[in-house]
Amino acid sequence: MKEIREIAKLAKEASYGLIDLSSSVKTSALLKIADLIEKEEAKILAENSKDLEYGKKVGLSPTLLDRLALNPKRVKNMADGLRSVASLPDPVGEITGMKRRPNGLFVGKMRVAIGVIGIIYEARPNVTVDCASLCLKSGNSVVLRGGKEALNSNKILADIMQSVLSEMGIDKAAISFISRVEKEIVKELVQLSEYIDCIILRGGKGLIEMIGTGAKVPIIAHGEGICHTYIDEDADIDMAVRIAYNAKVQRPGVCNAMETLLVHQKIAKKVLPQLGKDLKDAGCRLLGCEKTRQILPDIGEATEEDWKTEYLDLILSIKMVSDINEAIAHITKYGSGHSDAIITSSHPNAMKFIKKVDSAAVYVNASTRFTDGGEFGLGAEMGISTQKLHARGPMGLQELTSEKFVILGDGQIRE
Amino acid sequence: MKEIREIAKLAKEASYGLIDLSSSVKTSALLKIADLIEKEEAKILAENSKDLEYGKKVGLSPTLLDRLALNPKRVKNMADGLRSVASLPDPVGEITGMKRRPNGLFVGKMRVAIGVIGIIYEARPNVTVDCASLCLKSGNSVVLRGGKEALNSNKILADIMQSVLSEMGIDKAAISFISRVEKEIVKELVQLSEYIDCIILRGGKGLIEMIGTGAKVPIIAHGEGICHTYIDEDADIDMAVRIAYNAKVQRPGVCNAMETLLVHQKIAKKVLPQLGKDLKDAGCRLLGCEKTRQILPDIGEATEEDWKTEYLDLILSIKMVSDINEAIAHITKYGSGHSDAIITSSHPNAMKFIKKVDSAAVYVNASTRFTDGGEFGLGAEMGISTQKLHARGPMGLQELTSEKFVILGDGQIRE
Repeated sequence: MKEIREIAKLAKEASYGLIDLSSSVKTSALLKIADLIEKEEAKILAENSKDLEYGKKVGLSPTLLDRLALNPKRVKNMADGLRSVASLPDPVGEITGMKRRPNGLFVGKMRVAIGVIGIIYEARPNVTVDCASLCLKSGNSVVLRGGKEALNSNKILADIMQSVLSEMGIDKAAISFISRVEKEIVKELVQLSEYIDCIILRGGKGLIEMIGTGAKVPIIAHGEGICHTYIDEDADIDMAVRIAYNAKVQRPGVCNAMETLLVHQKIAKKVLPQLGKDLKDAGCRLLGCEKTRQILPDIGEATEEDWKTEYLDLILSIKMVSDINEAIAHITKYGSGHSDAIITSSHPNAMKFIKKVDSAAVYVNASTRFTDGGEFGLGAEMGISTQKLHARGPMGLQELTSEKFVILGDGQIRE
Repeated sequence: MKEIREIAKLAKEASYGLIDLSSSVKTSALLKIADLIEKEEAKILAENSKDLEYGKKVGLSPTLLDRLALNPKRVKNMADGLRSVASLPDPVGEITGMKRRPNGLFVGKMRVAIGVIGIIYEARPNVTVDCASLCLKSGNSVVLRGGKEALNSNKILADIMQSVLSEMGIDKAAISFISRVEKEIVKELVQLSEYIDCIILRGGKGLIEMIGTGAKVPIIAHGEGICHTYIDEDADIDMAVRIAYNAKVQRPGVCNAMETLLVHQKIAKKVLPQLGKDLKDAGCRLLGCEKTRQILPDIGEATEEDWKTEYLDLILSIKMVSDINEAIAHITKYGSGHSDAIITSSHPNAMKFIKKVDSAAVYVNASTRFTDGGEFGLGAEMGISTQKLHARGPMGLQELTSEKFVILGDGQIRE
């Protein structure tokens, strides 16, 4: 599609200009965008109401409509998010590890922008602003392609951001927006390796499967979150109940919510009755292994399939394990490498868990629900990587950069 | 292929055991391998001579035969390489950036092994030892798949390494070797994402094209090296001639050798006659743009195609440019993001060049021939990445690791 190729090409050209922008100019652009978003609140809400009307017409779920909806408070939050990203240190230009080699060469690494970042996301309009702000701050052009449900909201936000860039003499293609919503657009984008350096997929499993293995552009995928909480033998019972309840119930539809609870056999009788009652009171459906069902006889049976399932719903599978090793082996076999927690009072077991569990976020005595760029102190996030290469977990400014070698000599040649 | 899948599966299982190995055990294994390689020199040379015989029979070029050949000195170098990797700090387990969040959570990053690294390489037997040692030191299993020309040499080296692992009670599948040489093996390996976490391709353009876009395992490719040297307006003439000559002639068949020389128009008359003579004396064929040929009238004409060509041979294309901006624009358009150098006495121009040239290694006043793990102080290298994500340039221990978030709490839940 010529139109999409042209958008990507212009974004690439704009990215060369971003190399020259000083930190203060980027900061100033982000602050101006924040102000303009607050000033244009009425216009933004008007466009958002078009999306909400369309959403109701096509029968979006109340949850999805809620994600889509903006209000004055949410508009203010977007502006504050921009100010928060503006206040972070500029990652670009940092030179680290510069060492003198025996031949007198100085060899170090310089942090630089990646170039052009494509981002494919779903219904929340604030993602448009979060991603554009992180990319601008880190010196990357961004190509935004949001869900069709939020088209009008995303478009007005992109327009506002572009108008500030233009006013400041920055190539507005640095924040590019694709307003075509066909699925084929995504397939086209992942082929444009000439212009796009990396694509971040926030669309979940369906989107990843749709793209398959045919992409030419490197992809960082926000994969499944089959998150575990393991309650160890000598966990604090109250803490265990509180954390497990929070990990499952506080917001069950998101990737960092718990899907499987693992309980040490020696603590199961002390913790499961109370936790089971709390969860059921919250409307949660419980499925357990055979041993679990001896303690909670009225719950369903968890099958092999359950251990592999990301419910994204008020459903929890529970397994009793004989020790921490069995818990770690279960997570290794069935986990998705997203977020996993141990609740324990044992220091050796806490250390063992953080060493051996190979996930993007490994927790001791806290809810997995914290896996989030804001909660981790990154200001905002581009998404959460469940891959091992380049970026793991919430991706912030640093994950939007790469490091190149810089070598300073005074005439060295190789013998 | 069941056999290849089984090898990968065993390597994955071995990788879990590597998490438990202390640094001192890994170091001790590397030192023992070094000793055993020296002790078994005669056996290694005997196997190597089988490869050389076969190579002569099938008509390998003298250059390739030289790359393949081992001798007592090269065996000693392999052992010393192992000792050098053994002496490097263990990258695994380092926790950085641990900060306390307002809610009391400690959030930081822990460096961990990636898991299983596949490496596909060509004729040099020392690559077998370099890669296995870097993987073992960084806690990764390795699956080695070398070129068929070096099969016997690689196999004896893998056998020696495995025998030390077994003797020390380490799962020998941590250093796995594939002795089947069909091309289909590579296509099979890149599908095994269940067991292999990353594949490093050292085989150049042909190998990358063979695999195409069908890989399921993330790939780090050692792409082309279309390297430039730009001689700036006020370069030191002697230094410029010396560095450009070295970058082209010292070893023209490798990826970090210069392929295109860019010369500022104001210095061209001073530098090109001497440099042209030196290069021609070394047997180098020169091709130039129109302006270059006004100074060096007896050289061939460089066409558009030449700017895009990695000769890997004693051929050089030369272009005269009107200023540093044109030089940078040329590198941006035609370079492959490998290694590019400026020769200059101007500090602002040196800074501009390192900021704006988007390559894995950017040089000021030195030969591009230094792009190499050993020369950069990494001990050895797994290959040179021309990608931007995860690793750029020579890949050492750190590039064989990833960082996961570690979160230490005392009961925090998300509100």
